[in-house]
Amino acid sequence: MRILILNGPNLNLLGTREKTIYGSENFDQYFEELKLIFPDFTLEYFQSNIEGEIINKIHEVRMSLDGIVLNAAAYTHTSVAIRDAISAVDLPIIEVHISNVHKREAFRHASIISASCVGVIAGFGLDSYRLGIEALTKLNKSK
Amino acid sequence: MRILILNGPNLNLLGTREKTIYGSENFDQYFEELKLIFPDFTLEYFQSNIEGEIINKIHEVRMSLDGIVLNAAAYTHTSVAIRDAISAVDLPIIEVHISNVHKREAFRHASIISASCVGVIAGFGLDSYRLGIEALTKLNKSK
Amino acid sequence: MRILILNGPNLNLLGTREKTIYGSENFDQYFEELKLIFPDFTLEYFQSNIEGEIINKIHEVRMSLDGIVLNAAAYTHTSVAIRDAISAVDLPIIEVHISNVHKREAFRHASIISASCVGVIAGFGLDSYRLGIEALTKLNKSK
Amino acid sequence: MRILILNGPNLNLLGTREKTIYGSENFDQYFEELKLIFPDFTLEYFQSNIEGEIINKIHEVRMSLDGIVLNAAAYTHTSVAIRDAISAVDLPIIEVHISNVHKREAFRHASIISASCVGVIAGFGLDSYRLGIEALTKLNKSK
Amino acid sequence: MRILILNGPNLNLLGTREKTIYGSENFDQYFEELKLIFPDFTLEYFQSNIEGEIINKIHEVRMSLDGIVLNAAAYTHTSVAIRDAISAVDLPIIEVHISNVHKREAFRHASIISASCVGVIAGFGLDSYRLGIEALTKLNKSK
Amino acid sequence: MRILILNGPNLNLLGTREKTIYGSENFDQYFEELKLIFPDFTLEYFQSNIEGEIINKIHEVRMSLDGIVLNAAAYTHTSVAIRDAISAVDLPIIEVHISNVHKREAFRHASIISASCVGVIAGFGLDSYRLGIEALTKLNKSK
Amino acid sequence: MRILILNGPNLNLLGTREKTIYGSENFDQYFEELKLIFPDFTLEYFQSNIEGEIINKIHEVRMSLDGIVLNAAAYTHTSVAIRDAISAVDLPIIEVHISNVHKREAFRHASIISASCVGVIAGFGLDSYRLGIEALTKLNKSK
Amino acid sequence: MRILILNGPNLNLLGTREKTIYGSENFDQYFEELKLIFPDFTLEYFQSNIEGEIINKIHEVRMSLDGIVLNAAAYTHTSVAIRDAISAVDLPIIEVHISNVHKREAFRHASIISASCVGVIAGFGLDSYRLGIEALTKLNKSK
Amino acid sequence: MRILILNGPNLNLLGTREKTIYGSENFDQYFEELKLIFPDFTLEYFQSNIEGEIINKIHEVRMSLDGIVLNAAAYTHTSVAIRDAISAVDLPIIEVHISNVHKREAFRHASIISASCVGVIAGFGLDSYRLGIEALTKLNKSK
Amino acid sequence: MRILILNGPNLNLLGTREKTIYGSENFDQYFEELKLIFPDFTLEYFQSNIEGEIINKIHEVRMSLDGIVLNAAAYTHTSVAIRDAISAVDLPIIEVHISNVHKREAFRHASIISASCVGVIAGFGLDSYRLGIEALTKLNKSK
Amino acid sequence: MRILILNGPNLNLLGTREKTIYGSENFDQYFEELKLIFPDFTLEYFQSNIEGEIINKIHEVRMSLDGIVLNAAAYTHTSVAIRDAISAVDLPIIEVHISNVHKREAFRHASIISASCVGVIAGFGLDSYRLGIEALTKLNKSK
Amino acid sequence: MRILILNGPNLNLLGTREKTIYGSENFDQYFEELKLIFPDFTLEYFQSNIEGEIINKIHEVRMSLDGIVLNAAAYTHTSVAIRDAISAVDLPIIEVHISNVHKREAFRHASIISASCVGVIAGFGLDSYRLGIEALTKLNKSK
Repeated sequence: MRILILNGPNLNLLGTREKTIYGSENFDQYFEELKLIFPDFTLEYFQSNIEGEIINKIHEVRMSLDGIVLNAAAYTHTSVAIRDAISAVDLPIIEVHISNVHKREAFRHASIISASCVGVIAGFGLDSYRLGIEALTKLNKSK
Repeated sequence: MRILILNGPNLNLLGTREKTIYGSENFDQYFEELKLIFPDFTLEYFQSNIEGEIINKIHEVRMSLDGIVLNAAAYTHTSVAIRDAISAVDLPIIEVHISNVHKREAFRHASIISASCVGVIAGFGLDSYRLGIEALTKLNKSK
Repeated sequence: MRILILNGPNLNLLGTREKTIYGSENFDQYFEELKLIFPDFTLEYFQSNIEGEIINKIHEVRMSLDGIVLNAAAYTHTSVAIRDAISAVDLPIIEVHISNVHKREAFRHASIISASCVGVIAGFGLDSYRLGIEALTKLNKSK
Repeated sequence: MRILILNGPNLNLLGTREKTIYGSENFDQYFEELKLIFPDFTLEYFQSNIEGEIINKIHEVRMSLDGIVLNAAAYTHTSVAIRDAISAVDLPIIEVHISNVHKREAFRHASIISASCVGVIAGFGLDSYRLGIEALTKLNKSK
Repeated sequence: MRILILNGPNLNLLGTREKTIYGSENFDQYFEELKLIFPDFTLEYFQSNIEGEIINKIHEVRMSLDGIVLNAAAYTHTSVAIRDAISAVDLPIIEVHISNVHKREAFRHASIISASCVGVIAGFGLDSYRLGIEALTKLNKSK
Repeated sequence: MRILILNGPNLNLLGTREKTIYGSENFDQYFEELKLIFPDFTLEYFQSNIEGEIINKIHEVRMSLDGIVLNAAAYTHTSVAIRDAISAVDLPIIEVHISNVHKREAFRHASIISASCVGVIAGFGLDSYRLGIEALTKLNKSK
Repeated sequence: MRILILNGPNLNLLGTREKTIYGSENFDQYFEELKLIFPDFTLEYFQSNIEGEIINKIHEVRMSLDGIVLNAAAYTHTSVAIRDAISAVDLPIIEVHISNVHKREAFRHASIISASCVGVIAGFGLDSYRLGIEALTKLNKSK
Repeated sequence: MRILILNGPNLNLLGTREKTIYGSENFDQYFEELKLIFPDFTLEYFQSNIEGEIINKIHEVRMSLDGIVLNAAAYTHTSVAIRDAISAVDLPIIEVHISNVHKREAFRHASIISASCVGVIAGFGLDSYRLGIEALTKLNKSK
Repeated sequence: MRILILNGPNLNLLGTREKTIYGSENFDQYFEELKLIFPDFTLEYFQSNIEGEIINKIHEVRMSLDGIVLNAAAYTHTSVAIRDAISAVDLPIIEVHISNVHKREAFRHASIISASCVGVIAGFGLDSYRLGIEALTKLNKSK
Repeated sequence: MRILILNGPNLNLLGTREKTIYGSENFDQYFEELKLIFPDFTLEYFQSNIEGEIINKIHEVRMSLDGIVLNAAAYTHTSVAIRDAISAVDLPIIEVHISNVHKREAFRHASIISASCVGVIAGFGLDSYRLGIEALTKLNKSK
Repeated sequence: MRILILNGPNLNLLGTREKTIYGSENFDQYFEELKLIFPDFTLEYFQSNIEGEIINKIHEVRMSLDGIVLNAAAYTHTSVAIRDAISAVDLPIIEVHISNVHKREAFRHASIISASCVGVIAGFGLDSYRLGIEALTKLNKSK
Repeated sequence: MRILILNGPNLNLLGTREKTIYGSENFDQYFEELKLIFPDFTLEYFQSNIEGEIINKIHEVRMSLDGIVLNAAAYTHTSVAIRDAISAVDLPIIEVHISNVHKREAFRHASIISASCVGVIAGFGLDSYRLGIEALTKLNKSK
């Protein structure tokens, strides 16, 4: 399977940012671990702070990949445009979050994009990404 | 008249995306038809998935063109910044939508940008763009 | 095509009422202009201040005409009964407004009837009616 | 017993209107059936699309009849005036609906008139009217 | 001065309807008293249960009279159309209510029409009408 | 027909509880009357104060009976679980209430379970149950 | 009759404050006019910017006077304490406002104190006070 | 690891209930599959339609097990008591849902219990349970 | 006096659960202390996690005891059924809480059951129960 | 212990004001009784209708007394300033109410000051004050 | 320039009150520092816990001073009367806050008085006052 | 000190855009003035209409500068992503606005980013930027 890990705004600072919430590992290290866990998969990684570039990326890979594990970060709560991009492509997309958003500020409890995704995984730290790939694998087998 | 057709996020996928809502014609084909319908007009076309680039474009053409037909798509419902861009320029701008947004999800019923536009045309498929140009033409004559 | 222009409450005072919002032309004059613009069409006109008479008219013409251009005025924001009447007939009905309702009081931003109409055209002064007929024409051709 | 069946807006189109919701029988046929079911009763029938005429009718029969089975249709959700008319007369009035309004759009879940009526019967198709008369009969006996 | 007393829905039942709220005097008797109190005035009276007829009446007298004392009853809380009619004419219109609406159900606390009227007088029983005429008299002198 | 009368919390106190609202007859007496009214029917009766036992009962009878007349009492306004139980079974279920809930506290106006039931009957005292059985009978015949 | 005119915060600046809303006459001048209009009455006047002093005054005069004409100004919209003071005394109290509060900011549309007063008079400039005294006079006669 | 799979109301009907939402496999079959997938784990299973029994079970296993995979079904949206039970024990508890609740009715978008759980997994059919156990395994290793 | 101490969900874990909020004493110990403080009273104790069993208990003791001190815990905020049970019996019932619910999450600020109870005591730790009994004693004397 | 009983607006009228809600005993009589019940305590009493004087009093006694029993009356629902005063001093303050505020108007259900107080006692008539002192005594012992 | 520093409720306790929020310096000390920073200015200082006295002060200085730096503290969020006082005078008034109110409870995010002030400065500790004077200075020069 | 002035969408049009709100000076001129006012500081300037580029800039300077004066313009009211970027860096960031946002449309009253900033300065025209730098200077000294 070819899978894109797609990270939204401020996740480039992972490991240096608010460590009590997001942990101290940076994503590049974790991405190497992920590739070891799924040696038979082609894993790609893209991060952007720009809402429209996340949309561009979703469009770009819609023919060439088998699924996306998407952490839209802050755009989860504000972006109708990303929601529409997810609906516009046929690719299965899994929404993941590092923290349990329901333990945080009220405005993080509502997700605009969830209804367009296959499903949601939140609160397991970086392990949420691994679980997202696991979920995609199972979906792929069920087809 | 020199008019810009300005399309927002995901409209680059028109014709391939959710065809029951948006139809199966892609915008490039339709743009050619539009030019035939208005042979005496200079029609330009720009599409971006990036909110700020839509603002940049509105700023850029504010002196050189006579009007904009704007389909801000998802940004219609979330972008105060595009609303402010419309208010900041003197150009008449017409808001158009392919689908009748009032038949869709509740969050699509509210438009942040409408109050800054001259008027709104929604629900006529791609024909909404033609009607938008018609409306600009009449406005131009009334000046 | 046979088309009914159907006007709701207080539009009989057009030309004398709040001229900064609605302009100084009265509707009878404009209706004559409209007939000149669409010489091949049968245009009918009906205005009533009574909600139920607007419903009666929609019922009455549902077999004999090809479409309605409806400016329900104040009833746009309060009438579930007119919404139901529009849903109850097969006729394509276009909602039009003279002013851009989104620039006015908040209670005028919500439309109860829009979801039953084909589409909405608002903010172009009396030209909204012409655009409404244009839209109906195109719809008719597409059938 | 002398009972009025009072129908609100668009119910004159019953049998031709949105058949999946309202069924294909028209009300005149059903009214004949009702008279056969209750041969000892005087059943009257009135329908209007005009809110104020429904009020007029309630006022008119307030001395001469024993009860009203009222389907106020769309006015159920918007008419304080009909609510006040019901409170203003001594007659027992039963609110009925053909469809189960709670399965439909959210704005149909709230009833302005229910609190003035004796009770509510909704969701049984045209049989709601028969049940309404049954309910009135029992109320009459209990007096 | 020529003044119209304009009464909305269910006020024709005054004296027979919910006497603890509205008192037991009917309006015709009271209208005779009013004419005695203001012998130099031309007082006219109109009542309708139909929203659109109230609008028609406001339009009709807009040139010929000096003011309206309006008790829109239930339409006070629901009618944007009457609000627009009041704004559409130049006549000073005073909103009156027999009961103090703020002591009643919450939905009677909000008035849609107040913002278009000169002012509001509520809670003084039938005397609210006399005070309304007093207020119009003073306004007339101030011109 | 085999029909279950299913009563929710506090209805075991009927006849002793808040008599001005619920009357002074207890349900056992009334159930005997009901059996006399429908001599050809098999009527069963179950009451519980425990939400989950009401769900258990709905599951239990889903194959063996022809319908349920359900007065979920307080759980009407709070139980998504009962709503889901109703949706989960094929049995027609009629929602009934002794009092007219719309005349009582605001939190009793909203029903969570209504959208899953066939229809609603409220406000006729204990007679609401008889009308519920009548409604089921008619539904059964229409199949 | 002995009547207190009771004015709330900022009304001491009347005539110098926001003249387009409140007019240019100061209250002392107007109070002299009022005394001339009602020569047989004992009119007292009290103004305070302090919420609790307004309450003290209401308490103080509750035995010795026949009524209060109260313009609570800003406290109208925020003071439960004044509302309770009005309920705590037997005196008839009339709420008056110089401007039509419904034409101003939304937070001025809601009145906390209205439900405790006999009635409300708003929008007639300083004449609202005269009408308030007129209303008290009539109430007094009806006793 | 010793893990409890804890299922809430109506999940006993899985495989027979609303198959388009929940699939056609019943939970007993799936539980056997789960045991094969995690042969080294002790998996227990409990289901109840009674809110309080779910709480009792959480209390009961709080010392003896290593984690709970909880599908509270309808109680997810209404039960503060289960939320408090989760907070009251030290056990890690994972919230799972078969369907993507964000694609369903609005009242299913809000979860009362999520803020007390470690994390949430929703939308992957029965595979959500497997992912829940995977997540617990990883949490256990991290300790 | 014979008094029931009635505890709702999760209070069986008192002393082991969230000690910073609820303290470290378990309820059995405290109940022994209470009996020493009120040696002349018959104090009974019942706890359940099941909403309906709390209702059953209220029904059961309604003839045999003189009052209830009720800590409904989480059901305070969600149970219309317990509210109705309290209204259905003649017994004076005092609502108590260990913590000051107003210092906690917003959803704990609203109490559904308070309006049916005699009064509320909250925030004094376990001493709230003693104060509840004190309050019942006084009420009993006043009879 | 030295304790201040601090009463807010309109409580000076106790015994003469709305007796069905507040009883017919005036507070001076009751204060004498209280001193007899707690002969070893120094009880002080202060009442004001002025919000700021209540704040002044809280500041003034913050060093010299051991606790306050506060009935802020109407200011309970509107005064952020009193809430801040309570937070600003170290003194334990108990909120009491004579009536059960949850049985009264909805705007009395929300308390702004509760979250700053130790706890709340409401609904026991004047006995609420005695219970407040009892609660302070226990708190004092626990220190 | 002659400038008044006007402090609202509880600010007299500065330095002793909630030091983590407001710091440990008392205002008198800081006021001396301020006078040293602006040696050419006449700085006056007034503090009151009474809303109406703050209004009195604003009125009093409206002719004699050049501006006010106002920290209305808790009244910021509740006082329409202070808002009206600010609008009633011609003096430029700057709203300042010691803490960043947006980091605190939600009810402190909304300011009733901001719309009447020239501008707002919040979150800089006592330095907010100095910045307020700086802002006034600049405004004065621009005149 | 090294400080970045960071401007959001449409501020590049300053001086040409809505001059009654924003003044007629363009930002480049003003930036030159600012450099003269703070000759010892290193002032940098960046403007973008793209939300993500503003985030990029905040990330980029987080190590190399001493503070940011941020006017996020329209993104103030919609961008959770910028709020998160501010929280993610250690740099003190001051929120400034040219106009007093509380005097404008209601949707401009709420700021999403304020809670992450040190403080807020709004309403002083371009002088807000100078005050922002003043505030940073003081913060720097206090460290």
